Amino acid sequence: MTVEELLNSILREVKPSPEDEQKVREVSEKITNALKSETKALGLNVEVEIYGSVAKGTWLKGDVDLDIFLMADKSIPREELISGGLKAAKRIFEDLRGRWIERYADHPYVEGWIDGIRVDVVPCYRAEPGKWLTAVDRTPYHTEYIKSRLSGEALDQVRLLKKFTKGIGVYGADIKTGGFSGYLCELLIVNYGDFIKTLEAASKWGRRTIIDIGGYYRGRLGEAKKKFQHPLVLVDPVDSNRNVAAAVRLETLCNFIMASKCFLRKPLRVFFDPPKPVKLTEESLKRRLESRGLDLVAVSFGAVEAVPDVLWGQLYRTLDSLRALLENWGFKVYRAKAWTDEHGLTVLLFELESSILSRLKLHMGPPVFSEEFWNFLSKHLGKRAASTGPWIEGDRLFVEVERRFRDVKDLLEYFLKVDGGISVGVRGKVAEAIGRGFKVLKNTELWNTMSVNADFNLFISEFLDGLPIWLKVWLEEAEANFDEARDVKAR
Amino acid sequence: MTVEELLNSILREVKPSPEDEQKVREVSEKITNALKSETKALGLNVEVEIYGSVAKGTWLKGDVDLDIFLMADKSIPREELISGGLKAAKRIFEDLRGRWIERYADHPYVEGWIDGIRVDVVPCYRAEPGKWLTAVDRTPYHTEYIKSRLSGEALDQVRLLKKFTKGIGVYGADIKTGGFSGYLCELLIVNYGDFIKTLEAASKWGRRTIIDIGGYYRGRLGEAKKKFQHPLVLVDPVDSNRNVAAAVRLETLCNFIMASKCFLRKPLRVFFDPPKPVKLTEESLKRRLESRGLDLVAVSFGAVEAVPDVLWGQLYRTLDSLRALLENWGFKVYRAKAWTDEHGLTVLLFELESSILSRLKLHMGPPVFSEEFWNFLSKHLGKRAASTGPWIEGDRLFVEVERRFRDVKDLLEYFLKVDGGISVGVRGKVAEAIGRGFKVLKNTELWNTMSVNADFNLFISEFLDGLPIWLKVWLEEAEANFDEARDVKAR
Repeated sequence: MTVEELLNSILREVKPSPEDEQKVREVSEKITNALKSETKALGLNVEVEIYGSVAKGTWLKGDVDLDIFLMADKSIPREELISGGLKAAKRIFEDLRGRWIERYADHPYVEGWIDGIRVDVVPCYRAEPGKWLTAVDRTPYHTEYIKSRLSGEALDQVRLLKKFTKGIGVYGADIKTGGFSGYLCELLIVNYGDFIKTLEAASKWGRRTIIDIGGYYRGRLGEAKKKFQHPLVLVDPVDSNRNVAAAVRLETLCNFIMASKCFLRKPLRVFFDPPKPVKLTEESLKRRLESRGLDLVAVSFGAVEAVPDVLWGQLYRTLDSLRALLENWGFKVYRAKAWTDEHGLTVLLFELESSILSRLKLHMGPPVFSEEFWNFLSKHLGKRAASTGPWIEGDRLFVEVERRFRDVKDLLEYFLKVDGGISVGVRGKVAEAIGRGFKVLKNTELWNTMSVNADFNLFISEFLDGLPIWLKVWLEEAEANFDEARDVKAR
Repeated sequence: MTVEELLNSILREVKPSPEDEQKVREVSEKITNALKSETKALGLNVEVEIYGSVAKGTWLKGDVDLDIFLMADKSIPREELISGGLKAAKRIFEDLRGRWIERYADHPYVEGWIDGIRVDVVPCYRAEPGKWLTAVDRTPYHTEYIKSRLSGEALDQVRLLKKFTKGIGVYGADIKTGGFSGYLCELLIVNYGDFIKTLEAASKWGRRTIIDIGGYYRGRLGEAKKKFQHPLVLVDPVDSNRNVAAAVRLETLCNFIMASKCFLRKPLRVFFDPPKPVKLTEESLKRRLESRGLDLVAVSFGAVEAVPDVLWGQLYRTLDSLRALLENWGFKVYRAKAWTDEHGLTVLLFELESSILSRLKLHMGPPVFSEEFWNFLSKHLGKRAASTGPWIEGDRLFVEVERRFRDVKDLLEYFLKVDGGISVGVRGKVAEAIGRGFKVLKNTELWNTMSVNADFNLFISEFLDGLPIWLKVWLEEAEANFDEARDVKAR
C-alpha cells in the first residue's frame, strides 16, 4: 500500500458522509432554535452561533463535538450572561431529553448529549481582538480565521492530522494529555500545507520551535522565544499575545516528533488506529514480572473528587513528589505513571530497581573543618552499635547507618497514612482521596485489581511493554527496514 | 589524669635515656669511622656527617633512624659519588655484619641494620641553598636549621608530636601514608611552640593552610597558594621554593585535624599508643557480614614487584580505576581500600551496596531531535525481546535493557583476565602481578586468606569497624562527654 492509498483509506473512515453532515446539521438547528427561544424567554440578549470543528468543517466522523456559543454584547454584566446562559442550556437539554453536566475549563459551560452527539453550550462576549473579556471570546475569531484559510481538500488534511494525533495519544489540550488542540492541528495545516508536509516539518523540529503564521514577530523571533516559554510555539494569528501550543508538554511534543519520524520512514495504519494492548492473565503477569527482575509498586486509592484538569494536574504533581520521596530515601525509580478511571480507582505506579534496600546506607557527613563536626560526631555516638565509621574521605566524614525504611511499602505507608501525604507533597484533592483509604501493592499483589478492572489491566500491560502500542507494532513491522537503512549508510 | 600527666607519661616512654643515647652515639661513631676509612680507601673524597633526627636530638626511644651523609664537593662527578658512596656503605655493613639493602626514594641510598639500629647511608653534595644538585642536599641545612631553633624542652614537644602522628597513622612522607615527615613535625613545633599549641592550631586549620616561618611570602600569600597546590603548605625555611608538607594528602591531613580536635576535647593515651584491632574468627566474620547486609568483594593476588612508593602509587591509582569501573557498570561502591604485606599478598577490597544487580537496567538514549535517534532505535531493535521501551521522558528516549554483568564477580573476572586489567586502568606493575594469577573473593570467601594471614585478618577487622582504632576507643570513652557538651550549648 502506498502512502496515498493509506491516507485515502483513513480518510474514508474519518470523513463524514453527506448523511453524517445532514444529521449534525439537524441537531445543530434543533438546539440553536431551542436556545434562541429559551434565551429570549429568559430575557437574555444573546446571539446563538455555531463555532468549532463543525463550523469549520474539520470534525471527524463518529467523533463530533458541537460548540454552540451564546454571544453577548459587552453591556451585559458577566454574572447575568453566565447564569442566564447556563440556565438556558440546561433547560433545553432537559426539554430535548439529553443528559447534561455543568463544566468549567477556563470558563463555565454546559456539556450535554443530544441524539448521540456531544454539545457544548458556551456563554461568551463579542469582543474586539486583544480586548478579550473571557477565555473563550477568541473562538469566533478562530473559526472565522480557519474558514477563511482552509477549504475542500485542506479540510481532509486537517482530519488526517487530527486522527493521527488521536491515534498516537497526543490530541487534546487538557492537562492529562498536554497535547494538540483541534485549532492547533488546523493551523499546522494552514502553515505547512498538508498532512505529510506537517509531519516532515515536525520530524525536523528542535527543542524549541516557533511558528508565526501572522508574521507578528518577523525579525524579532528572540522576543517571541522570551515571551513564550513553551517547547512548541505557534503564535495565534488572531492574537499575537497567545501561544496556541501553550498546552503542549515537552514529552507530548517529542512523542509527536517521534511518531512523525517513524511514519515517514514506514507509513502504517497503526498510527491512526492503534490496537489495544494485550490483556494480561494472572499467569502472564507473574511471568513478565519475574523475567524483568524489577519491582512494581502501586499506591491505589479511590476517586479524586475534582474536574479532570484539576485532578490530573494534582496527580502529575503528586507523582513527581512521591518519586522524589522514594529517591530521597534511596530507591532507584526507573519509571512513574499515574492512572485513573476518573470515578472509582486511582493508581500511582512506580517501577523500582529494587523495592528492598540494604540494611546499611552510606551517609556523607560534614567536612572535618566544618562547625557541624561535633554535632555530627555526637549524633552518631548513640548509633554506634548499628553503624560503621565515621571515616574520612576527601575532607568529609562518612558513616554507614541503618536505613529507616528498607521496604518501600513501609516508607509509603508511613508518610501517606498521615493527612494522605500532604507533608511529602501529595496535592490537596489527591491527599483527600488517599485519606479515605489507600493500599500499597507490590508486583503480583496488583492482580486483584487488574482482574476486576479491564482498563487498569491494559494500563499495566502497556506499562510493562514500556512503549506506546503504536510504536510496538511499528517496530515489529519495521525491523527489516532498519537493516536496509544501515546498509545504505555503510556503503 | 591531667593532660600534663598524660604527656609526661608518654615522654617517659619515648624519650631516650642516657644509656640509649650512649648506645646510638657508639654505633654512630663506629659507622662514621668505618665509612671514613672506607671512602678514603676507595679514593672518594667525601666528609662523613650525621644528620636527621639523631643529629637534631628528636628521635624516639626504640625507633631510631641513623642518617649518615657522605658529603661531596661539586667537583666530583655524580656517577662517581653515587657508585663510590654506595660501594663504601655496602662494604662497611658487610664488615660490621649488618644486613643491608640498596634503596631509592628520590635518590639512591643504602639502608642497613647495625646492633638493632636502622642506618641510612646517603651520598650527597655540599650545595648552596637553592642550587641543589640532588634531592637530599637540603638535609644538612634542615638539620642545621632545627638545631639552631630547637633545644631542651622543645625537643620533647617534637617527640610528642611524632609519637602522636605515628599513633594515629599519619607519620611518614611515603606514598602509602601521604603524611607528616619528621622535619615537618619539627617545624610545626618551631612555628607553634609546643605540642598542645600545634594541635590547637591544627584543629582550626581549614581546607588550605599556609605556614610561612621564614616569612618569604609575607604580604604575598596568594602567590604561595598558587605556587603550592597542596592542602597543607609549610614553606621550607631553607628553601622558599619547597613545601615541606607537599606529601600530605587531604585525607591524611583531615585525619590529623580530627585527631587534634578529639584529643583536645578528651586527651587519651590511645592517640599515642593504639591497640590492635580485634582479630576475627570465622564465626565473628560471618556474623558481622550478615548483620551489615552489604557485600565485600576482594581482588586478591600475589606480590607487586616494585619499591614501596611505586607499589603504593600504582595500588592507589588502580583502586580508583576499579572503583570507577564498578560504578560505571552500576554497582554502588561504598568504600574501597588497598592492602598488601609488600611481599606475598595484595588485596584490593571493595564494599558494595549489593554485589548482584537487577536483570534490567535503565538506559538513557539520545534526545528525539538528535541525529542519533535512528541509530539508537535500530540498535535497540534486535534486543526487543529482552528489553522494555523505548519511551520518552523529557525530550529523551529511554529503554530498559539487560545488564551485561549482573554479578560483580563476572565483571571483575572478565576485565582482569585480559592483560591483568590494563585496559580498565590497572597500573603496570599491579597488572603484572594480577596477570600471574588472581582471585575474586566475596564475603565469607575471604576467610581462607584471613585464617592464614593475621595482618590481613586485622585489616578486615578494622575495615568492618570502618574507623581508625584510636577513634573507636576514643568514641567509647568520650560518650559521656558529649552530653555535657550539648548541655552547655543548650543553656
